[in-house]
Amino acid sequence: MSRFIVIEGLEGAGKSTVQRHVVNWLEARGHKVMTTREPGGTPLAEKMRALVKEVHEEPLTMEAELLLMYAARVQLVKNRIQPALADGLWVVGDRHDLSSQAYQGGGRGIDAGLITQIKHAVLGDFKPDLTLYLDIDPAQGLTRARSRGELDRIELENLDFFERTRARYLELVQADASSLLIDASGDEQQVKALVLAKLEQHLCIPG
Amino acid sequence: MSRFIVIEGLEGAGKSTVQRHVVNWLEARGHKVMTTREPGGTPLAEKMRALVKEVHEEPLTMEAELLLMYAARVQLVKNRIQPALADGLWVVGDRHDLSSQAYQGGGRGIDAGLITQIKHAVLGDFKPDLTLYLDIDPAQGLTRARSRGELDRIELENLDFFERTRARYLELVQADASSLLIDASGDEQQVKALVLAKLEQHLCIPG
Repeated sequence: MSRFIVIEGLEGAGKSTVQRHVVNWLEARGHKVMTTREPGGTPLAEKMRALVKEVHEEPLTMEAELLLMYAARVQLVKNRIQPALADGLWVVGDRHDLSSQAYQGGGRGIDAGLITQIKHAVLGDFKPDLTLYLDIDPAQGLTRARSRGELDRIELENLDFFERTRARYLELVQADASSLLIDASGDEQQVKALVLAKLEQHLCIPG
Repeated sequence: MSRFIVIEGLEGAGKSTVQRHVVNWLEARGHKVMTTREPGGTPLAEKMRALVKEVHEEPLTMEAELLLMYAARVQLVKNRIQPALADGLWVVGDRHDLSSQAYQGGGRGIDAGLITQIKHAVLGDFKPDLTLYLDIDPAQGLTRARSRGELDRIELENLDFFERTRARYLELVQADASSLLIDASGDEQQVKALVLAKLEQHLCIPG
């Protein structure tokens, strides 16, 4: 039995740290684990990531941004995630489809139905078995993210953009039984304890 | 009054030569003309073109190929074609939306309704005022294209792929009143004469 677990959340929510804790927890239970990050995770998807993340002289339209996100996701799902799951690996992803719905839908204001159409068109019913959404106040998250160094094109958006993104995240998580909200405002040990408790509760793995 | 004219057709149909004749014809009538080629035509769209055209070690999924084509098209339409038309320029394009419908729909077999959904989602009702489809037997076209040198990733497809692409082109051109079929099997002067006759007939421009 293998599963696809995704960590979601705003900049500075602590996704990569939580991803590491989830991987350690799974490996301690004897599972082989592959990690991914989105957009990216394959050679071609990383090139698409660069187009989305870099600051360009030419404005990247929000429609092209959305299409690039899905182009990168299709490459990752078909060329790495699905083969890994078929091989019995667990996959722990830093971001997946919920990010596009929250950032491009909530943040940029692209119609939610349209995003869903594109998603179904290229990925069908494929979705994570479990999503851990790390909820954080955007101002707190951005302060953490800024302390890490230079910001990319999307991280340069204003606070309103991230408020809209968070609001959409909250709606989506509430509507989806396989998505769990984690309060990510505490320090690393507090968030880790919340995450591992959710894993114990929702993944019935022989120890 | 400005217009968007598109030249379509298979590899080796003579699109870039015809594009030059159309531009000369328009300029001789005093119009300012901008040319485009797809995929590409802006700095970001050219980077997307490279991802589609180059032969990669990682297979490019047909879904990602389609999304990249539309991402590049949105960049070109919003950042160059629409501004040029608004400035009163005529735009003469080497390929546009019909190519995606013919190659990704007919050639690759992606559902036509899905392609139309994506098209409308990101470009709405925007379409060329006139499309000149240069019809050629795929074997003849590929022989011409091969004589020009190295083939790109798409040009390396087998003859069946191009037969399916041509069949879809023919269906689409027949169904669209603003698309005209030009027999492109003759030599440059013959095709040029057919093209200019069509322009005289369909563009009522004061000489």
